[in-house]
Amino acid sequence: MALAEPLVLYTAKICPFAHRVELALAETGLKSNKDFVRYEIDLKNKPEWYQPKINPASKVPAIAYGGPKTTGDQPSPSSTKIAESLVLIEFVADLFPNSSLLPKDPVLRAKTRFFIDTFANKFGPALFTFQSGKAPNGAEGIFSAIEQLQDLMAPEGLAIGDGTEFTLADAAVIPFFGRMEVSLKNDFGAFPEGEGKSTWETLQTDERFARWKKYWDTAKARESFKTTFDEVTKIFYPITFS
Amino acid sequence: MALAEPLVLYTAKICPFAHRVELALAETGLKSNKDFVRYEIDLKNKPEWYQPKINPASKVPAIAYGGPKTTGDQPSPSSTKIAESLVLIEFVADLFPNSSLLPKDPVLRAKTRFFIDTFANKFGPALFTFQSGKAPNGAEGIFSAIEQLQDLMAPEGLAIGDGTEFTLADAAVIPFFGRMEVSLKNDFGAFPEGEGKSTWETLQTDERFARWKKYWDTAKARESFKTTFDEVTKIFYPITFS
Repeated sequence: MALAEPLVLYTAKICPFAHRVELALAETGLKSNKDFVRYEIDLKNKPEWYQPKINPASKVPAIAYGGPKTTGDQPSPSSTKIAESLVLIEFVADLFPNSSLLPKDPVLRAKTRFFIDTFANKFGPALFTFQSGKAPNGAEGIFSAIEQLQDLMAPEGLAIGDGTEFTLADAAVIPFFGRMEVSLKNDFGAFPEGEGKSTWETLQTDERFARWKKYWDTAKARESFKTTFDEVTKIFYPITFS
Repeated sequence: MALAEPLVLYTAKICPFAHRVELALAETGLKSNKDFVRYEIDLKNKPEWYQPKINPASKVPAIAYGGPKTTGDQPSPSSTKIAESLVLIEFVADLFPNSSLLPKDPVLRAKTRFFIDTFANKFGPALFTFQSGKAPNGAEGIFSAIEQLQDLMAPEGLAIGDGTEFTLADAAVIPFFGRMEVSLKNDFGAFPEGEGKSTWETLQTDERFARWKKYWDTAKARESFKTTFDEVTKIFYPITFS
Protein backbone atom coordinates (compact mmCIF):
# COMPACT_ATOMS: atom_id res chain seq x y z
CA MET A 1 0.00 0.00 0.00
CA ALA A 2 1.15 3.53 -0.63
CA LEU A 3 0.06 6.99 0.42
CA ALA A 4 -1.45 9.38 -2.13
CA GLU A 5 0.03 12.42 -0.38
CA PRO A 6 3.00 13.14 1.92
CA LEU A 7 2.29 12.39 5.57
CA VAL A 8 4.15 13.54 8.69
CA LEU A 9 3.26 11.94 12.01
CA TYR A 10 4.11 14.03 15.05
CA THR A 11 4.51 11.57 17.88
CA ALA A 12 6.41 10.72 21.06
CA LYS A 13 7.67 7.29 22.07
CA ILE A 14 6.40 7.82 25.57
CA CYS A 15 2.78 8.59 24.64
CA PRO A 16 0.21 5.76 24.41
CA PHE A 17 -2.20 7.95 22.42
CA ALA A 18 0.44 8.62 19.76
CA HIS A 19 1.37 4.92 19.80
CA ARG A 20 -2.15 4.10 18.60
CA VAL A 21 -1.46 5.90 15.35
CA GLU A 22 1.97 4.32 14.92
CA LEU A 23 0.38 0.89 15.26
CA ALA A 24 -2.37 1.67 12.74
CA LEU A 25 0.17 2.95 10.20
CA ALA A 26 2.47 -0.04 10.76
CA GLU A 27 -0.40 -2.49 10.26
CA THR A 28 -1.15 -1.03 6.81
CA GLY A 29 2.41 -2.01 5.88
CA LEU A 30 3.74 1.55 5.72
CA LYS A 31 7.32 1.94 6.89
CA SER A 32 8.24 4.73 9.27
CA ASN A 33 10.67 7.27 7.75
CA LYS A 34 10.35 5.65 4.35
CA ASP A 35 6.67 5.88 3.41
CA PHE A 36 5.93 8.66 5.90
CA VAL A 37 7.93 10.97 8.14
CA ARG A 38 7.97 10.06 11.84
CA TYR A 39 8.74 13.23 13.78
CA GLU A 40 9.52 12.75 17.48
CA ILE A 41 8.30 15.59 19.70
CA ASP A 42 10.08 16.05 23.02
CA LEU A 43 7.04 16.58 25.23
CA LYS A 44 9.11 18.35 27.88
CA ASN A 45 10.64 20.75 25.38
CA LYS A 46 8.32 21.15 22.40
CA PRO A 47 9.57 23.05 19.35
CA GLU A 48 8.12 26.56 19.34
CA TRP A 49 6.46 26.04 15.96
CA TYR A 50 4.53 22.96 17.13
CA GLN A 51 1.53 24.58 18.78
CA PRO A 52 0.94 27.44 16.28
CA LYS A 53 1.64 25.44 13.14
CA ILE A 54 0.57 21.85 13.92
CA ASN A 55 -1.75 21.48 16.87
CA PRO A 56 -3.34 24.39 18.78
CA ALA A 57 -3.90 21.96 21.67
CA SER A 58 -0.12 21.33 21.63
CA LYS A 59 -0.57 17.57 22.13
CA VAL A 60 0.68 14.54 20.24
CA PRO A 61 -0.30 12.74 18.13
CA ALA A 62 -0.98 14.94 15.11
CA ILE A 63 -0.68 14.39 11.39
CA ALA A 64 0.18 16.83 8.61
CA TYR A 65 -1.23 15.42 5.38
CA GLY A 66 -0.79 16.74 1.85
CA GLY A 67 1.17 19.72 0.57
CA PRO A 68 4.86 19.51 -0.38
CA LYS A 69 7.20 16.90 1.06
CA THR A 70 8.76 18.19 4.27
CA THR A 71 11.06 16.87 6.97
CA GLY A 72 8.46 17.84 9.57
CA ASP A 73 10.18 20.77 11.26
CA GLN A 74 9.22 23.27 8.59
CA PRO A 75 5.51 22.51 8.22
CA SER A 76 3.85 23.78 5.07
CA PRO A 77 0.69 25.90 5.47
CA SER A 78 -0.82 23.91 2.60
CA SER A 79 -0.97 20.57 4.44
CA THR A 80 -4.02 19.63 6.49
CA LYS A 81 -3.32 19.28 10.20
CA ILE A 82 -5.34 16.63 12.06
CA ALA A 83 -5.30 15.79 15.78
CA GLU A 84 -6.82 13.43 18.39
CA SER A 85 -5.73 9.81 18.42
CA LEU A 86 -9.13 8.24 17.72
CA VAL A 87 -9.79 10.65 14.85
CA LEU A 88 -6.35 9.80 13.47
CA ILE A 89 -6.69 6.03 13.54
CA GLU A 90 -10.04 6.36 11.73
CA PHE A 91 -8.20 8.59 9.24
CA VAL A 92 -5.58 5.88 8.63
CA ALA A 93 -8.39 3.36 8.07
CA ASP A 94 -10.02 5.79 5.61
CA LEU A 95 -6.73 6.20 3.72
CA PHE A 96 -6.58 2.40 3.39
CA PRO A 97 -10.15 1.19 3.06
CA ASN A 98 -8.96 -2.23 1.94
CA SER A 99 -6.79 -2.79 5.00
CA SER A 100 -8.10 -4.87 7.90
CA LEU A 101 -8.30 -1.83 10.21
CA LEU A 102 -12.06 -1.62 9.88
CA PRO A 103 -14.05 -4.73 8.92
CA LYS A 104 -16.29 -4.43 5.87
CA ASP A 105 -19.45 -5.47 7.76
CA PRO A 106 -21.26 -2.49 9.38
CA VAL A 107 -22.09 -4.57 12.47
CA LEU A 108 -18.44 -5.52 12.99
CA ARG A 109 -17.44 -1.89 12.47
CA ALA A 110 -19.89 -0.91 15.20
CA LYS A 111 -18.45 -3.61 17.47
CA THR A 112 -14.96 -2.24 16.82
CA ARG A 113 -16.02 1.26 17.85
CA PHE A 114 -18.01 0.05 20.85
CA PHE A 115 -14.97 -1.87 22.07
CA ILE A 116 -12.90 1.33 21.88
CA ASP A 117 -15.65 3.28 23.65
CA THR A 118 -15.73 0.74 26.50
CA PHE A 119 -11.96 0.82 26.77
CA ALA A 120 -11.87 4.64 26.89
CA ASN A 121 -14.69 4.99 29.40
CA LYS A 122 -14.03 2.00 31.65
CA PHE A 123 -10.48 0.69 31.44
CA GLY A 124 -8.73 4.04 30.92
CA PRO A 125 -10.06 5.76 34.04
CA ALA A 126 -9.59 2.55 36.10
CA LEU A 127 -5.92 2.24 35.14
CA PHE A 128 -5.29 5.93 35.73
CA THR A 129 -6.93 5.87 39.15
CA PHE A 130 -4.95 2.79 40.15
CA GLN A 131 -1.62 4.14 38.95
CA SER A 132 -2.13 7.41 40.74
CA GLY A 133 -2.73 5.50 43.99
CA LYS A 134 -6.30 6.76 44.32
CA ALA A 135 -8.26 3.57 43.64
CA PRO A 136 -10.46 2.85 46.68
CA ASN A 137 -10.56 -0.88 45.94
CA GLY A 138 -7.02 -1.35 44.68
CA ALA A 139 -6.85 -3.17 41.36
CA GLU A 140 -10.54 -4.17 41.40
CA GLY A 141 -11.43 -1.37 38.96
CA ILE A 142 -8.86 -2.65 36.47
CA PHE A 143 -10.08 -6.23 36.93
CA SER A 144 -13.69 -5.27 36.36
CA ALA A 145 -12.87 -3.26 33.23
CA ILE A 146 -10.81 -6.13 31.83
CA GLU A 147 -13.76 -8.47 32.36
CA GLN A 148 -16.00 -6.07 30.46
CA LEU A 149 -13.53 -5.98 27.59
CA GLN A 150 -13.25 -9.78 27.63
CA ASP A 151 -17.03 -10.00 27.18
CA LEU A 152 -16.67 -8.01 23.95
CA MET A 153 -13.71 -9.97 22.57
CA ALA A 154 -13.65 -12.61 19.88
CA PRO A 155 -13.34 -16.09 21.48
CA GLU A 156 -9.64 -16.17 20.58
CA GLY A 157 -6.95 -14.12 18.84
CA LEU A 158 -7.41 -10.39 18.44
CA ALA A 159 -10.38 -8.34 19.60
CA ILE A 160 -12.99 -8.25 16.84
CA GLY A 161 -14.84 -10.71 14.58
CA ASP A 162 -13.11 -14.09 14.44
CA GLY A 163 -9.96 -12.63 16.00
CA THR A 164 -7.80 -13.10 12.91
CA GLU A 165 -7.68 -9.49 11.71
CA PHE A 166 -5.98 -6.51 13.35
CA THR A 167 -8.49 -3.68 13.72
CA LEU A 168 -8.69 -0.19 15.19
CA ALA A 169 -9.88 -1.85 18.41
CA ASP A 170 -6.46 -3.45 18.80
CA ALA A 171 -4.62 -0.27 17.83
CA ALA A 172 -6.56 1.68 20.46
CA VAL A 173 -5.87 -0.60 23.44
CA ILE A 174 -2.46 -2.21 22.88
CA PRO A 175 -0.42 0.91 23.78
CA PHE A 176 -2.07 1.03 27.20
CA PHE A 177 -1.72 -2.67 27.95
CA GLY A 178 1.97 -2.40 27.00
CA ARG A 179 2.57 0.42 29.43
CA MET A 180 0.45 -1.25 32.11
CA GLU A 181 2.62 -4.37 31.94
CA VAL A 182 5.82 -2.33 32.42
CA SER A 183 4.30 -0.33 35.24
CA LEU A 184 2.90 -3.31 37.16
CA LYS A 185 5.83 -5.69 36.71
CA ASN A 186 8.26 -3.04 37.89
CA ASP A 187 5.99 -1.73 40.60
CA PHE A 188 6.19 1.74 39.06
CA GLY A 189 3.30 3.90 40.26
CA ALA A 190 1.79 5.71 43.22
CA PHE A 191 0.00 2.58 44.49
CA PRO A 192 1.24 0.88 47.69
CA GLU A 193 4.55 -0.94 47.21
CA GLY A 194 4.12 -4.47 45.94
CA GLU A 195 0.61 -3.90 44.62
CA GLY A 196 1.85 -3.53 41.05
CA LYS A 197 3.63 -6.89 41.10
CA SER A 198 0.75 -8.67 42.83
CA THR A 199 -1.76 -7.22 40.36
CA TRP A 200 0.35 -8.41 37.44
CA GLU A 201 0.63 -11.84 39.03
CA THR A 202 -3.17 -12.01 39.36
CA LEU A 203 -3.63 -11.01 35.71
CA GLN A 204 -1.21 -13.75 34.67
CA THR A 205 -2.57 -16.59 36.77
CA ASP A 206 -6.24 -16.01 37.67
CA GLU A 207 -8.63 -17.92 35.40
CA ARG A 208 -10.92 -14.89 35.55
CA PHE A 209 -8.53 -13.11 33.17
CA ALA A 210 -7.56 -16.06 30.97
CA ARG A 211 -9.04 -14.54 27.81
CA TRP A 212 -7.33 -11.23 28.39
CA LYS A 213 -3.98 -12.91 29.03
CA LYS A 214 -4.26 -14.78 25.73
CA TYR A 215 -5.28 -11.58 23.99
CA TRP A 216 -2.34 -9.68 25.32
CA ASP A 217 0.14 -12.49 24.55
CA THR A 218 -1.14 -12.53 20.96
CA ALA A 219 -1.12 -8.74 20.60
CA LYS A 220 2.34 -8.09 21.99
CA ALA A 221 3.88 -10.74 19.72
CA ARG A 222 2.87 -8.79 16.62
CA GLU A 223 5.60 -7.23 14.53
CA SER A 224 3.77 -3.86 14.60
CA PHE A 225 4.01 -3.78 18.40
CA LYS A 226 7.62 -4.91 18.55
CA THR A 227 8.76 -2.27 16.06
CA THR A 228 6.88 0.59 17.76
CA PHE A 229 7.43 -0.15 21.46
CA ASP A 230 11.04 -0.25 22.55
CA GLU A 231 13.32 0.03 25.53
CA VAL A 232 13.02 3.81 25.56
CA THR A 233 9.32 3.45 26.22
CA LYS A 234 9.91 1.17 29.14
CA ILE A 235 10.29 4.00 31.58
CA PHE A 236 7.37 4.70 33.80
CA TYR A 237 5.67 8.03 33.39
CA PRO A 238 2.35 9.21 34.81
CA ILE A 239 -0.24 8.11 32.27
CA THR A 240 -3.01 10.62 31.83
CA PHE A 241 -6.26 9.91 30.08
CA SER A 242 -8.03 12.63 28.18
CA MET B 1 -32.61 3.86 0.44
CA ALA B 2 -33.70 0.74 2.25
CA LEU B 3 -32.40 -1.35 5.09
CA ALA B 4 -31.06 -4.83 4.45
CA GLU B 5 -32.25 -6.08 7.85
CA PRO B 6 -34.95 -5.13 10.39
CA LEU B 7 -33.93 -2.28 12.67
CA VAL B 8 -35.43 -1.18 15.99
CA LEU B 9 -34.29 2.12 17.47
CA TYR B 10 -34.77 2.41 21.23
CA THR B 11 -34.98 6.09 21.93
CA ALA B 12 -36.58 8.80 24.07
CA LYS B 13 -37.85 12.15 22.82
CA ILE B 14 -36.25 13.89 25.75
CA CYS B 15 -32.71 12.58 25.18
CA PRO B 16 -30.28 14.55 22.98
CA PHE B 17 -28.00 11.54 22.57
CA ALA B 18 -30.85 9.45 21.16
CA HIS B 19 -31.90 12.38 18.99
CA ARG B 20 -28.54 12.16 17.20
CA VAL B 21 -29.48 8.74 15.86
CA GLU B 22 -33.00 9.83 14.87
CA LEU B 23 -31.50 12.66 12.84
CA ALA B 24 -28.97 10.41 11.10
CA LEU B 25 -31.69 7.91 10.19
CA ALA B 26 -34.05 10.68 8.97
CA GLU B 27 -31.31 12.17 6.80
CA THR B 28 -30.86 8.86 4.96
CA GLY B 29 -34.50 9.15 3.93
CA LEU B 30 -35.73 6.33 6.17
CA LYS B 31 -39.17 6.86 7.67
CA SER B 32 -39.76 6.20 11.33
CA ASN B 33 -42.22 3.35 11.99
CA LYS B 34 -42.28 2.47 8.30
CA ASP B 35 -38.71 1.60 7.36
CA PHE B 36 -37.64 0.96 10.95
CA VAL B 37 -39.33 0.62 14.34
CA ARG B 38 -39.03 3.62 16.63
CA TYR B 39 -39.51 2.39 20.20
CA GLU B 40 -39.95 5.09 22.83
CA ILE B 41 -38.43 4.22 26.21
CA ASP B 42 -39.85 5.98 29.26
CA LEU B 43 -36.60 6.85 31.00
CA LYS B 44 -38.31 7.16 34.36
CA ASN B 45 -40.00 3.81 34.07
CA LYS B 46 -37.98 1.55 31.78
CA PRO B 47 -39.44 -1.79 30.71
CA GLU B 48 -37.87 -4.58 32.74
CA TRP B 49 -36.57 -6.33 29.62
CA TYR B 50 -34.65 -3.26 28.43
CA GLN B 51 -31.46 -3.61 30.44
CA PRO B 52 -31.02 -7.41 30.22
CA LYS B 53 -32.07 -7.78 26.59
CA ILE B 54 -31.09 -4.53 24.86
CA ASN B 55 -28.48 -2.48 26.70
CA PRO B 56 -26.62 -3.62 29.84
CA ALA B 57 -25.89 0.07 30.54
CA SER B 58 -29.67 0.64 30.46
CA LYS B 59 -29.30 3.88 28.47
CA VAL B 60 -30.83 5.11 25.25
CA PRO B 61 -30.12 5.16 22.39
CA ALA B 62 -29.68 1.55 21.36
CA ILE B 63 -30.33 -0.32 18.14
CA ALA B 64 -31.37 -3.93 17.59
CA TYR B 65 -30.32 -4.89 14.06
CA GLY B 66 -31.06 -8.09 12.19
CA GLY B 67 -33.03 -11.16 13.23
CA PRO B 68 -36.78 -11.48 12.72
CA LYS B 69 -39.07 -8.46 12.45
CA THR B 70 -40.28 -7.42 15.89
CA THR B 71 -42.34 -4.63 17.40
CA GLY B 72 -39.48 -3.84 19.78
CA ASP B 73 -40.92 -5.02 23.07
CA GLN B 74 -40.13 -8.66 22.44
CA PRO B 75 -36.51 -8.44 21.34
CA SER B 76 -35.09 -11.44 19.52
CA PRO B 77 -31.87 -12.95 20.85
CA SER B 78 -30.70 -13.21 17.23
CA SER B 79 -30.50 -9.48 16.56
CA THR B 80 -27.29 -7.56 17.27
CA LYS B 81 -27.64 -4.96 20.02
CA ILE B 82 -25.57 -1.81 19.61
CA ALA B 83 -25.29 1.17 21.97
CA GLU B 84 -23.61 4.58 22.39
CA SER B 85 -24.82 7.48 20.25
CA LEU B 86 -21.55 8.15 18.42
CA VAL B 87 -21.08 4.47 17.64
CA LEU B 88 -24.66 4.38 16.36
CA ILE B 89 -24.44 7.36 14.02
CA GLU B 90 -21.28 5.86 12.50
CA PHE B 91 -23.26 2.62 12.14
CA VAL B 92 -26.03 4.44 10.23
CA ALA B 93 -23.37 5.97 7.96
CA ASP B 94 -21.91 2.50 7.40
CA LEU B 95 -25.34 1.10 6.50
CA PHE B 96 -25.67 3.87 3.90
CA PRO B 97 -22.17 4.49 2.55
CA ASN B 98 -23.58 6.52 -0.35
CA SER B 99 -25.46 8.95 1.89
CA SER B 100 -23.92 12.32 2.73
CA LEU B 101 -23.43 11.39 6.39
CA LEU B 102 -19.70 10.88 5.92
CA PRO B 103 -17.92 12.64 3.05
CA LYS B 104 -15.94 10.43 0.65
CA ASP B 105 -12.68 12.33 1.16
CA PRO B 106 -10.63 10.94 4.11
CA VAL B 107 -9.57 14.47 5.13
CA LEU B 108 -13.18 15.66 5.29
CA ARG B 109 -14.11 12.54 7.24
CA ALA B 110 -11.38 13.38 9.74
CA LYS B 111 -12.69 16.95 9.96
CA THR B 112 -16.17 15.59 10.63
CA ARG B 113 -14.90 13.46 13.51
CA PHE B 114 -12.67 16.21 14.90
CA PHE B 115 -15.66 18.57 14.94
CA ILE B 116 -17.61 16.02 16.98
CA ASP B 117 -14.66 15.50 19.32
CA THR B 118 -14.38 19.26 19.94
CA PHE B 119 -18.11 19.49 20.56
CA ALA B 120 -18.04 16.59 23.03
CA ASN B 121 -14.98 17.78 24.94
CA LYS B 122 -15.53 21.55 24.88
CA PHE B 123 -19.13 22.55 24.23
CA GLY B 124 -20.80 19.68 26.07
CA PRO B 125 -19.11 20.23 29.44
CA ALA B 126 -19.49 24.03 29.10
CA LEU B 127 -23.25 23.79 28.51
CA PHE B 128 -23.70 21.30 31.33
CA THR B 129 -21.73 23.42 33.80
CA PHE B 130 -23.70 26.51 32.84
CA GLN B 131 -27.09 24.82 33.08
CA SER B 132 -26.30 23.35 36.44
CA GLY B 133 -25.44 26.85 37.72
CA LYS B 134 -21.81 25.95 38.41
CA ALA B 135 -20.03 27.97 35.71
CA PRO B 136 -17.58 30.33 37.42
CA ASN B 137 -17.68 32.81 34.51
CA GLY B 138 -21.35 32.51 33.59
CA ALA B 139 -21.90 31.86 29.88
CA GLU B 140 -18.27 32.55 28.93
CA GLY B 141 -17.52 28.82 28.71
CA ILE B 142 -20.36 28.35 26.22
CA PHE B 143 -19.23 31.39 24.22
CA SER B 144 -15.65 30.17 24.04
CA ALA B 145 -16.71 26.66 22.94
CA ILE B 146 -19.00 28.12 20.26
CA GLU B 147 -16.10 30.17 18.93
CA GLN B 148 -13.96 27.03 18.75
CA LEU B 149 -16.69 25.26 16.80
CA GLN B 150 -17.10 28.26 14.48
CA ASP B 151 -13.39 28.05 13.63
CA LEU B 152 -13.98 24.49 12.42
CA MET B 153 -17.14 25.25 10.41
CA ALA B 154 -17.55 25.65 6.67
CA PRO B 155 -17.81 29.38 5.78
CA GLU B 156 -21.57 29.00 5.39
CA GLY B 157 -24.35 26.41 5.57
CA LEU B 158 -23.81 23.22 7.53
CA ALA B 159 -20.67 22.23 9.44
CA ILE B 160 -18.35 20.38 7.11
CA GLY B 161 -16.80 20.82 3.64
CA ASP B 162 -18.65 23.44 1.58
CA GLY B 163 -21.58 23.35 4.01
CA THR B 164 -24.06 21.87 1.53
CA GLU B 165 -24.16 18.32 2.86
CA PHE B 166 -25.59 17.07 6.15
CA THR B 167 -22.95 14.99 7.95
CA LEU B 168 -22.50 13.18 11.25
CA ALA B 169 -21.05 16.44 12.61
CA ASP B 170 -24.48 18.05 12.23
CA ALA B 171 -26.29 15.01 13.64
CA ALA B 172 -24.05 15.07 16.70
CA VAL B 173 -24.52 18.73 17.67
CA ILE B 174 -28.02 19.76 16.55
CA PRO B 175 -29.87 17.95 19.40
CA PHE B 176 -27.91 19.93 21.98
CA PHE B 177 -28.31 23.29 20.29
CA GLY B 178 -32.06 22.63 20.07
CA ARG B 179 -32.33 21.95 23.77
CA MET B 180 -30.02 24.85 24.62
CA GLU B 181 -32.30 27.25 22.75
CA VAL B 182 -35.35 26.07 24.69
CA SER B 183 -33.50 26.20 27.99
CA LEU B 184 -32.01 29.67 27.49
CA LYS B 185 -35.06 31.37 25.94
CA ASN B 186 -37.28 30.12 28.74
CA ASP B 187 -34.71 30.69 31.45
CA PHE B 188 -34.95 27.02 32.44
CA GLY B 189 -31.87 26.02 34.41
CA ALA B 190 -30.01 26.36 37.70
CA PHE B 191 -28.22 29.54 36.55
CA PRO B 192 -29.20 32.92 38.11
CA GLU B 193 -32.61 34.17 36.94
CA GLY B 194 -32.42 36.12 33.71
CA GLU B 195 -29.05 34.73 32.69
CA GLY B 196 -30.61 32.26 30.27
CA LYS B 197 -32.49 34.97 28.39
CA SER B 198 -29.53 37.34 28.33
CA THR B 199 -27.21 34.59 27.10
CA TRP B 200 -29.64 33.77 24.30
CA GLU B 201 -29.87 37.46 23.40
CA THR B 202 -26.08 37.66 23.18
CA LEU B 203 -25.93 34.59 20.93
CA GLN B 204 -28.54 36.15 18.65
CA THR B 205 -27.08 39.64 18.37
CA ASP B 206 -23.33 39.62 19.09
CA GLU B 207 -21.23 39.63 15.89
CA ARG B 208 -18.84 37.28 17.69
CA PHE B 209 -21.38 34.48 17.18
CA ALA B 210 -22.67 35.43 13.72
CA ARG B 211 -21.43 32.24 12.07
CA TRP B 212 -22.95 30.06 14.75
CA LYS B 213 -26.31 31.89 14.52
CA LYS B 214 -26.41 31.30 10.76
CA TYR B 215 -25.45 27.68 11.31
CA TRP B 216 -28.18 27.13 13.82
CA ASP B 217 -30.81 28.92 11.70
CA THR B 218 -29.89 26.66 8.77
CA ALA B 219 -29.83 23.50 10.85
CA LYS B 220 -33.12 23.95 12.66
CA ALA B 221 -34.94 24.67 9.40
CA ARG B 222 -34.17 21.18 8.12
CA GLU B 223 -37.02 18.73 7.73
CA SER B 224 -35.09 16.09 9.71
CA PHE B 225 -34.96 18.40 12.73
CA LYS B 226 -38.57 19.49 12.50
CA THR B 227 -39.85 15.93 12.32
CA THR B 228 -37.72 14.67 15.22
CA PHE B 229 -37.92 17.57 17.71
CA ASP B 230 -41.41 18.45 18.85
CA GLU B 231 -43.36 20.15 21.59
CA VAL B 232 -42.92 17.21 23.92
CA THR B 233 -39.18 17.76 23.80
CA LYS B 234 -39.54 21.39 24.71
CA ILE B 235 -39.56 20.70 28.39
CA PHE B 236 -36.42 21.43 30.26
CA TYR B 237 -34.66 18.55 31.87
CA PRO B 238 -31.21 18.40 33.37
CA ILE B 239 -28.91 17.57 30.49
CA THR B 240 -26.13 15.24 31.46
CA PHE B 241 -23.08 14.54 29.38
CA SER B 242 -21.48 11.16 29.44
